[in-house]
Amino acid sequence: MKVVWERLIRFVATDGRVLRGEPLLPTSDFDLGNTTEETQLKAKVITGTDPYDISGKTMVTNEVVTVRKLLGPLAPEDTDILRCVGLNYAKHIKEAGRSPPPFPFIFFKPTTCVADHGSDVLIPKIAQDDQADYEGELCLIIGKDAKDVSREEALNYVAAYTAGNDISSRKLQRDPAFAGRIPQWGFSKGFDTFAPLGPCLVNSELIGDPAELLLKTVVDGHVRQDETVRDLLFDCAYLISYLSTGTTLRKGSVIMTGTPGGVGAGLTPPQFLLPGTVMEVSISKIGTLRNGVKFA
Amino acid sequence: MKVVWERLIRFVATDGRVLRGEPLLPTSDFDLGNTTEETQLKAKVITGTDPYDISGKTMVTNEVVTVRKLLGPLAPEDTDILRCVGLNYAKHIKEAGRSPPPFPFIFFKPTTCVADHGSDVLIPKIAQDDQADYEGELCLIIGKDAKDVSREEALNYVAAYTAGNDISSRKLQRDPAFAGRIPQWGFSKGFDTFAPLGPCLVNSELIGDPAELLLKTVVDGHVRQDETVRDLLFDCAYLISYLSTGTTLRKGSVIMTGTPGGVGAGLTPPQFLLPGTVMEVSISKIGTLRNGVKFA
Repeated sequence: MKVVWERLIRFVATDGRVLRGEPLLPTSDFDLGNTTEETQLKAKVITGTDPYDISGKTMVTNEVVTVRKLLGPLAPEDTDILRCVGLNYAKHIKEAGRSPPPFPFIFFKPTTCVADHGSDVLIPKIAQDDQADYEGELCLIIGKDAKDVSREEALNYVAAYTAGNDISSRKLQRDPAFAGRIPQWGFSKGFDTFAPLGPCLVNSELIGDPAELLLKTVVDGHVRQDETVRDLLFDCAYLISYLSTGTTLRKGSVIMTGTPGGVGAGLTPPQFLLPGTVMEVSISKIGTLRNGVKFA
Repeated sequence: MKVVWERLIRFVATDGRVLRGEPLLPTSDFDLGNTTEETQLKAKVITGTDPYDISGKTMVTNEVVTVRKLLGPLAPEDTDILRCVGLNYAKHIKEAGRSPPPFPFIFFKPTTCVADHGSDVLIPKIAQDDQADYEGELCLIIGKDAKDVSREEALNYVAAYTAGNDISSRKLQRDPAFAGRIPQWGFSKGFDTFAPLGPCLVNSELIGDPAELLLKTVVDGHVRQDETVRDLLFDCAYLISYLSTGTTLRKGSVIMTGTPGGVGAGLTPPQFLLPGTVMEVSISKIGTLRNGVKFA
C-alpha cells in the first residue's frame, strides 16, 4: 500500500505544538536521527488522526514548520499491539549452536512499551541487576487490517518501516530463579519504554525490498550488531502471512522482526545496560534510533 | 474503585440498537448467561463511551429497553491488551506433579481475541487437528491506569469481574513439531475469538473478596472444572501488583487469572473442541459464559 507521505516524523515544533510531518531533508542522505534544534529541520505538517489513511482525510499540507525536538514517529496510543520474533537471524542461530526453529517464535509487547527516539529507556528496579539488554530490530507497521494473508500479498499490507530496540531483561527472561521453569518472554520485555521506535517511518515503496536493508547497533560507540536483513530466517512477508493466520493484524500494529547476533548477554564477559549507556540502532534508508538509559 | 453500574451488559435491543445497559434482574439469583429473547430481559441504558468513567460522563439512565440478544460485555475495541497467567491453581499444579513457579507465568492475548457471549469460537485450520481446548477463568478489568501498585492497593484498581475462556491450541503451544524448542504461548492462544468474555461485568464492590468465588466449566453437559478461586497460587491482588511492576496496566485492560485442573488435554483420553461443542464457564455472582465452536 502507498501512504500519502514519504517519511513521517513526530516532533515538537518551535511554536510548542506536537505535530506529525513530512520532513524536508537538508540533503538526500540526511540521517533524521541526527536532528537537533540546531539542524532547524523543516517539515510539512501532516493532518488527520490516522497516518495510514489513504481516503483523503490524511494530507501532507503546505504548512512548513521548524522542528525543535524530534520524538518517535508513533506514540503508544498510535499503535496497536507489537508482535515480536525471537531467534530469527540465521547466522546468529548457527553461531549459538542451535538448530533453526520450524516456525517463528512469537511474543508480544503491549503498546505502553513504545518510547520516543531521543528518550531514556527506564529500567525498573526489578531489572537493574546485570540483565537489561538491547536488541536492534527492523520493524514494520501494518497499514490496513490483515487476516489470512498469503506470502505473495503480505507486503501490500505494510505501510512503513522503522527501526526498533527490543529492550529485554535477561534474568527475568531466562534465569529459573527469576522466571521459573519456562522462559518468560512477555513480562521481561514488557515494561514501559521497552520498545523505542524511530527515528521516522519510511513509506514501504521507498524501502522496496526490505531484505536489502542493513542493520547496525552501536552501544557507547562500539559496534555490537551489524547484519543484513537478508539473513532473516523468516522474512517480512513470511512473518505477516504466518502471524495473520486466523488472526486480524490490526492497522497500526507493529511487527518487530528479530535481532541478529551481538546482544550484550552474548559478549564475553556479558555487558548490560547501565545508567548513561547510549544505544543507537541504525538501518539503511531509515536512519538512527538513539536512546539513553536511566534506572527508575 | 466504584463504577456507576452494578452489572454491565452489552446487547442488541428489540429496536435493533447495540447498547450497554444495567440489567433489571427478574430474580435476584437470575443467571444473565441464560438470557434469551423469550426472557424479555429489561435493562436501563448506560450512556458514555467509557464504562469505567466516574466523572459523571457515564450514566445509568432511566431509559428502559428490552434485550433481544445478549452479546459479550466488551467488544474488542473496548479493551486494552489481555494479560494471562499460566499454571496458577495450586491443586492443579500438584496434581500434575509440578512444583509451583516462583513467579506468575505471564503471556498476552491481543484484543482481537475478545468474543461475545453466545458466539461461536472459530478454530482456524491450523488448529483443527485434535488440539483446541477450553480454559475457564476468572477475569478482572482494570478501571484506571495502574503502575507500581502495592498488593494492599491493588484491588482498588479493579472496576469489575467477569468470566472468560482462554481458548488454547495445544500442539501449537507445546508439541516441538509445531511450536519448536520453546513452548509458544503467544501465537497458539492468540487467534481471533480465542477469548470469549461474559456474560456481564460485575462491579467489584458487589463481588467483594474474589477468593470466595466458585468457578465451574461444563462442556457438552459434563462438569470438567470445579474449583474455588481461593486455590489461586497468585491471587488477584498479587497479580495486579506484580504485573504493574514498571508497567502501566491501562484502563480497560483485562487480566485472565489462570485455569484450574480439568482441561480437555488432561483427560484420559484427551478430548478436544469439535464443531458443535458447547462450553459453559460459570462463576458465582457473575453467571454463565456460553460459547459454541466452529471450524473456520
